Amino acid sequence: MELMRLGEPGQERPVAKEGEKYFDLRGITADIDGGFLANDGIAKAREAVKAGLPEVEDAASLRIGAPVARPGAVLCIGQNYAAHAAESGDAPPSVPILFFKHPNTVVGAFDHVVIPPGAEKVDWEVELAVVIGKRASYLESPEKALDYVAGYAVSNDVSERAFQVEHSGGQWSKGKCCPTFNPLGPALVPADEVGDPQQLRLRSAVNGETRQDSNTSDMIFSVAYIIWHLSQYLVLEPGDIINTGTPQGVAISGKFPYLREGDRMEISIEKLGRQEQKLVSYTKQ
Amino acid sequence: MELMRLGEPGQERPVAKEGEKYFDLRGITADIDGGFLANDGIAKAREAVKAGLPEVEDAASLRIGAPVARPGAVLCIGQNYAAHAAESGDAPPSVPILFFKHPNTVVGAFDHVVIPPGAEKVDWEVELAVVIGKRASYLESPEKALDYVAGYAVSNDVSERAFQVEHSGGQWSKGKCCPTFNPLGPALVPADEVGDPQQLRLRSAVNGETRQDSNTSDMIFSVAYIIWHLSQYLVLEPGDIINTGTPQGVAISGKFPYLREGDRMEISIEKLGRQEQKLVSYTKQ
Repeated sequence: MELMRLGEPGQERPVAKEGEKYFDLRGITADIDGGFLANDGIAKAREAVKAGLPEVEDAASLRIGAPVARPGAVLCIGQNYAAHAAESGDAPPSVPILFFKHPNTVVGAFDHVVIPPGAEKVDWEVELAVVIGKRASYLESPEKALDYVAGYAVSNDVSERAFQVEHSGGQWSKGKCCPTFNPLGPALVPADEVGDPQQLRLRSAVNGETRQDSNTSDMIFSVAYIIWHLSQYLVLEPGDIINTGTPQGVAISGKFPYLREGDRMEISIEKLGRQEQKLVSYTKQ
Repeated sequence: MELMRLGEPGQERPVAKEGEKYFDLRGITADIDGGFLANDGIAKAREAVKAGLPEVEDAASLRIGAPVARPGAVLCIGQNYAAHAAESGDAPPSVPILFFKHPNTVVGAFDHVVIPPGAEKVDWEVELAVVIGKRASYLESPEKALDYVAGYAVSNDVSERAFQVEHSGGQWSKGKCCPTFNPLGPALVPADEVGDPQQLRLRSAVNGETRQDSNTSDMIFSVAYIIWHLSQYLVLEPGDIINTGTPQGVAISGKFPYLREGDRMEISIEKLGRQEQKLVSYTKQ
């Protein structure tokens, strides 16, 4: 079973996907959010699907929203694959590097990504997103840290490199928070259906040409280590998202052009599904 | 009129303070949050106070919570006073430097601040907090940017300097997000009752000894400039908090010792009130 949110922005309804069928979860929750996950929502959704829920007949015609509503925070780990650190001109980090995206950057997996006014260095980043299911504070070791994961999703940590590096005074968030800069989903896949998060192939392509093709086994700091480590510095809450870093093959390497209007990004992770976004120019609303 | 939230953590009720009287706002809103502010809540609260609301008789005995519930994001501007940049060993920034705190760091103005396990460099930072009242995206100029401000509050951007600088790989958030690290309030003072945000004396003291004593007129980037600038990179939403930077006089300068168990911080800003926090050690719950 996978969890999804289907419908127009702000109007998404919670849905469970089982095989090729979509079931309406509104009978058991108003939305898929931190409160739902903390309250054993995944188990309840499974039971409800078994017991019988109304099918969403028009699912194929509905927009796919981000699978988690209103994350309390979007935490990002920088340079967590050695080859990506190198292509960015940096040594591999000795500790996980933490920065944040504004949670309002999160959009659906097939929504357009908007090139901000003045942007010339928009870049893609396929990342394994961790969705926190339980409050995590001062965990004793990485060993049980995966118990705090509700599930996983595909994330595209879109970045504008001039905003991130040249306009920023060295703090990266300014290039990470533009509207539409975090396509998430299509689904939240429960942790127990994914198994080992360090054995997932993750890929990106632009206009059909492969850009990134790596595996989460290449992470410098594992998902379990990251959760344990972050819990020593802050409290992770249900519904928080952790973007766990991107492998080599992004435009800042100089090997590929930055994104332009009309380009198409494809982003996928084994077991978690695929995204596709078209790049569009900003138009004043 | 000032807006406050009184009661135990998670149980705060919304209150309007007018002179020495406290009025219960639960008849007009469940809480003071982004939705309330976006929906002209301040004007509605004023009307309701005039028309007559029940008084909160036991206000003096209630805990003072943060005056805004669940901020969508806590944005921070680094090194926005030239003398503070210098005491930190840096040149004054040429652009506003943006980083984030996890919103779950926000606590009440008189709550204890917890020294995290292993921390040796806990530092205070009095800051003018801006509470956003309207969605701000791609504003045309700084001139009308203050129209997007609901009000102001006192903020203590507590930091652990080793976590921020030495454990971080250069991204500051890791030293800014420990539990209890953002006392906010006591009140949200509406923008029109504050007037010019660049004429406010702001001070901090530790154990009764002055540490910071400066004025928001010394900011490198004004509140209006910051809002306009940020709106070019991200969308500011109602209920978002911007910590606008701290003046000189913090411990990282080397002139003062870092905070220890039992110390008392006092933090105040003209027209916005005062905070006081006791430093306590972390105890496992």
